[in-house]
This record gives sequence, C-alpha cells and structure tokens, in this order.
Amino acid sequence: MSPHALDDFYAVIPAGGVGSRLWPLSRADRPKFLRDIAGTGATLLRSTFDRLAPLCDVNRVMVVTGVAHGDEVRAQLPELGGDNVVLESEGRDSSAAIGLAAAIIERRNPGAVIGSFAADHLISANARFRRAVTEAVRAAREGLIVTIGIQPLAPSTAFGYIRAGEPLEILGAPSARQVEAFVEKPKAATARRYLASGEYLWNAGMFIAKASRLLEELEAYAPELAHGIAEIADAWDTPERDAVTARVWPTLEKIAIDYTVAEPAAKKGALAVIPGFFGWDDVGDFAAVSHVYGARSGTDAPLEIIGDEDRVIGHEASGLVVSETDRVIAIAGVQDVVVVDTPDALLVTTRAKAQQVKDVVAAIKESKHPEVL
Amino acid sequence: MSPHALDDFYAVIPAGGVGSRLWPLSRADRPKFLRDIAGTGATLLRSTFDRLAPLCDVNRVMVVTGVAHGDEVRAQLPELGGDNVVLESEGRDSSAAIGLAAAIIERRNPGAVIGSFAADHLISANARFRRAVTEAVRAAREGLIVTIGIQPLAPSTAFGYIRAGEPLEILGAPSARQVEAFVEKPKAATARRYLASGEYLWNAGMFIAKASRLLEELEAYAPELAHGIAEIADAWDTPERDAVTARVWPTLEKIAIDYTVAEPAAKKGALAVIPGFFGWDDVGDFAAVSHVYGARSGTDAPLEIIGDEDRVIGHEASGLVVSETDRVIAIAGVQDVVVVDTPDALLVTTRAKAQQVKDVVAAIKESKHPEVL
Repeated sequence: MSPHALDDFYAVIPAGGVGSRLWPLSRADRPKFLRDIAGTGATLLRSTFDRLAPLCDVNRVMVVTGVAHGDEVRAQLPELGGDNVVLESEGRDSSAAIGLAAAIIERRNPGAVIGSFAADHLISANARFRRAVTEAVRAAREGLIVTIGIQPLAPSTAFGYIRAGEPLEILGAPSARQVEAFVEKPKAATARRYLASGEYLWNAGMFIAKASRLLEELEAYAPELAHGIAEIADAWDTPERDAVTARVWPTLEKIAIDYTVAEPAAKKGALAVIPGFFGWDDVGDFAAVSHVYGARSGTDAPLEIIGDEDRVIGHEASGLVVSETDRVIAIAGVQDVVVVDTPDALLVTTRAKAQQVKDVVAAIKESKHPEVL
Repeated sequence: MSPHALDDFYAVIPAGGVGSRLWPLSRADRPKFLRDIAGTGATLLRSTFDRLAPLCDVNRVMVVTGVAHGDEVRAQLPELGGDNVVLESEGRDSSAAIGLAAAIIERRNPGAVIGSFAADHLISANARFRRAVTEAVRAAREGLIVTIGIQPLAPSTAFGYIRAGEPLEILGAPSARQVEAFVEKPKAATARRYLASGEYLWNAGMFIAKASRLLEELEAYAPELAHGIAEIADAWDTPERDAVTARVWPTLEKIAIDYTVAEPAAKKGALAVIPGFFGWDDVGDFAAVSHVYGARSGTDAPLEIIGDEDRVIGHEASGLVVSETDRVIAIAGVQDVVVVDTPDALLVTTRAKAQQVKDVVAAIKESKHPEVL
C-alpha cells in the first residue's frame, strides 16, 4: 500500500435497526449494536469502530444513529467528535442515512471516498478486512461503486449473495471483479450450488465509493430523495441545520441503498466487488450468536454459556444459554435449546427455530406488556 | 354409614420430603407440601387437611413434620391444636413418623383407628375419597391393616401397584379385598397388562389401622424401633418429652412403613385394600403437575400456564410454564417444554424428561450455588 493511500477515506457507520430476532438481548432502547451480543467483551458498535480505526483517523469516522441512542453512542465512542454523530429524528432507512453522510462529507472534503459498514456485524481476521477495504478504496477512486463480498464457508440460506463476474484488472485492486447480479437468500440446494461454483459471495452490505459518485447514482435512481438530502447537507454545518432537517428529513423516502445505488450500478456495470477472506456474520438471530460464540471461544461443550458459567447447570442438555441475571439456570434433557435470561424478560427457543423470535416479538407488541420490547 | 362411625378415627398427616423433582418450586425451606404446586388455590398440605376435615374433628388430626416447618404448618392450619403437631428434629422416615403418631394417639385414646395420608398428594372427587376411608375404618376395626388402592386410569409407570385378591366380605366394607402383593413401578408393557387385568391398583401409601394393631406389626418386624417409639410416646404428654425425644429419636432406624408394616401384614394375609375410585396423583414431577393442572383446569391450550397468563407468550409452543416472577416469558418453537421461573432460579426441561430434575438437583448440590436448593 502506498503511503497516504487512505488519506481521503471516510468510514460511515449506520447504527440503526433493533434486531428484533435477538430479543430480549436487543431492545428498542438498547438495540443490538449497543450490546456485546456475542460475549466478545466489546459492543458490536465499539468492535466496528475499533476495526475501522487503523483505516482512518477518528475525525473521519461518522456514525448515523437514532436520536434516542446519541448519548450511548457517544459514551461508547468517546473519541468521536460531536460533528461526526448524525442523529436521525426517525429511521428513514439506509439510502437516507448513508446518503446524508455522503453529502455532508462531500461538502466538507470534496472528492472523498466513503465506506459504509453496519454497526451490528461481527468480523474476524481484521488484517484481511483492512486489505479488502484498501483494495476497495483504490477501486472506488477509479469511479466505481464497490462492495466487499464475503467468501462463503458454508451454504448459508440466511444471507443474500453476490454473483461475481470478470476480473477488472485495476491497479492496486487486483482482486476486484465485476458484479453480475445480487441474488436473494437461496434455498438450501441452491446455496450448495452457489458454494460449489466459487462464483458467489455473501452480501455483507458494505459499500465503498466516492461520495460524489454515490450521490450521482442516488440522484439518477431517486432524484427527490437526493434533493432532500442535498438540502439538509447544505444546511448541516450552518445555523439552519435543525430547522431544515426537521422540515425535510421526515419527508424522505424510506428505501434501502441496495435498491437505489447498488443494484442500479450493477446493471450499468459500474459495481465492483472485492472478495473478503475473513470471518463475517450479521449475528441476526440466536443461532448465529451460538455459531459465532462457539467458533470464537473454541468451546466444544454441548451447552454454550454466555455469562456466569457457575450459575448454569446443564444435564443432558445442549444449546446456548445467555445469562444476564444472577439467577441459577438449570437445563435438563433439552437439546439445541436457546435460553436468554434477562431481568425483566425470558426467552426459550431452539437454535433451529431462532428465526421465530421475530414472531414472538410481534406477539408481545400486541400483548399487555409491550414495555419489554 | 351408621352415626358415629368415625368417632374414634384419627387422621395422621406425615409432612416430610422435599420433592426434589419439583425444584425450583419445592425447596428445602419451603417443600412441596407447603406449596400450591398445581395451581389449585391451596397448598397441598391445606388441601389434605380440608379433605380430611369432614372425616374427623380437628382435634383428631395430627401432623408430623420437620422442626423447620412447624411455624409454617401452624400458619397454614391455624385450626390445629399445638398438641397435634409432632415436630421431628430430623427426618427418620415413615415408620418412625407414623409409628410415633400411632403410639401417642393410642395412649390418648386407646383403641383408636388411625389413617395416614401423605401431605403432598392431590385427590379429586372427595366424596368418593370419604366413602373409601369410611370403608377402610370399618375394616380396620376388624383388626386388619387396610390400605386404599387407586383404580388406575392409565398404564402409569410412575407408581407402585397393589395386586388385589379375594373379597373379604366385611360388614360395612363391601369392597374390601385381600392384598396379594405389592409390586414395584413396572415397565410400560407390564403396566398395560396390569391395567387390562383389572386386578392392580396404584399404591398411594394410605394406611388405616387400629393404632394398637399397627404398633403390633411394627413390634414384630422392627422391635428396637417399636421400643424407641414407645419410650418417646410414654414421655410425650409429660415434662420429659423433650429430653427423651432428644435422646431416642436420632437413634431410630430410618425405614419406610411399607417394609415394616404393610408388606409383612400382606404376607400374613392381614392386609386389606379398599379400591378408591377417585382422581389421585402424588404430583411427583412436572409432568404430573402438567397432567393434574390440565385435567383440573380443562384447558386444551397446548401451553399450560400456572401464573399470570398475560405475561407468557407462546408461539408454536407446547408444554407447561410456571411463573412465580413478574417477568415476561416468551417460548418459541419448542414442544413439550417445562419452564419454571422463580426469583432466584430457572428450570428448563421437558415433560418427557421431567424425572431428570432429580439429577439437576444433585448437580446443583455439588455446584457453587447450593443455596438455591
């Protein structure tokens, strides 16, 4: 890597989303990204920040989050300057969140390259992560929209995929390839075919581009949204920020950046992918938590315990126990179980049925005790 | 029934045993019989007392329990006179407990008939229960040791059985039959054969006899034990009670009354059984709690809830939830589960594996937190 290769690189961390399949660990007032959901010793947000720190100065990290989480984000990331926390009065999805960050950064530093990295994913092998980002930034300087696709290690049906095409032969980004298409979460047989082919990568939702290029794509696909963002960004570093934001932000279309930028760019042949050879997980449910925790801790005990192991007694039991109370938890003759014990709420499910937690959350919303969500 | 048929009948309620397969509801300091384990609205002890009340005056009910439970027993049964609570400094099993009660009663009222009824069983159809006891008392007056065997409704493998023999043709006890043998808890196939034959009854551990006859049998089989009991009983209603009890009680052999009285009497042809046509359960584990609760409440919901139903959310779940906290409990995609939620301990098992709770309790005994037992 040449010196200063990343001098104009800004990291944007969209920190939204409740992670309802991780209830009762993830709550509306303390969502997944603010928690150490996998027992790593750091919250997902803090891990994301620490992973990006070697890539860009703290003055070039920007977090976009809900206004309710501003204080906690600042507490977890005390290095972060106040100008670099963008607070949303309400969630307007990722096109608005990342678009506004891009527009603010472009005005502060025209020509900058930005990378967007979700606040609630787990990544291992950070050196390989940095190598992939460095290649992506170089490819972005060539005017491409760039994503990092994760080399699959298993035929997962939980993630969307990217089909990689021809190598792009970019100087300094030797592994960059054309993106042929995005494909939805596959069935098991299809996922096995994807894995065997070697041509499919997991879509981890990481996007790297010149801020100006990203805004161009947004303008082409969703001009009203782009104009709204521009209006707010023009006022951002002025005394008009609050008034303009309060007026415009709630009117912005709620749409994921996958649809406004990534897919249109792919169709035009303007989207590149850098294969990432590192461990990645979006830790979307408790099966993923168990998987990530088991891999990280190297435990081969049938019952994984996140919390005080002395207080968990398993007898012919396997699965995952997450203990956030000082209660004794006994599990007898239950396989593959997931038990999540918190002071005001208890979840019992299985790893195989971990996705159903979403339905439970929907039911609690309609129950007499929505306050535990 | 002739008037005064039960005038000399005393009920003895041995209230011992922790019920470790019902942990964490049943604890050393608040065992099963002091709890409303099946959500009936009354503790098992109170239910037992209320069931016996129509059969004998409160002055003729005697409870034998551990010294640690004396206050709570008196609180639950405020009608009970102080003379009718026998406190054990330590558990010496049922021969000593029932034998001492018999010896005290015999001295207070020579010729009395006593019946022993466990404090921690559940019975429905109380009128039929009273009819069976009335027959048993009449048979006992003829000098027989009498038990009440429960007509099985299912091929249970959780209970011991009584094989009934020839009718005894006792005036006033028309359904009395000879007991041919006691048989241990059977395998499933044997239990089905027992049920089909119509000759087998569940052994509910109820014994009715003249106190003097019971003590004779005890003397014949376990003379040392009988002499120790007699020594304490002689001192009981005198100022020497405490001194003699403290010296003798800890030396008494620990042995169940089944071995010292019931089985020897059966071998001699001196044991009769009255078939009982009422619902009975020893509520020995959470599968039994679920069964009893389901039958009583008539609920056909797949997930039975003992506690605040508003706080329990099931999604594709079946089994039993017992809630003793104000936490929200969510169960997703788990069948036949048992979840017992108490302030300091949580149990997760299944109805099919409910017996394993015993092993969990053994493991907790060896753990760093035996204080929750």
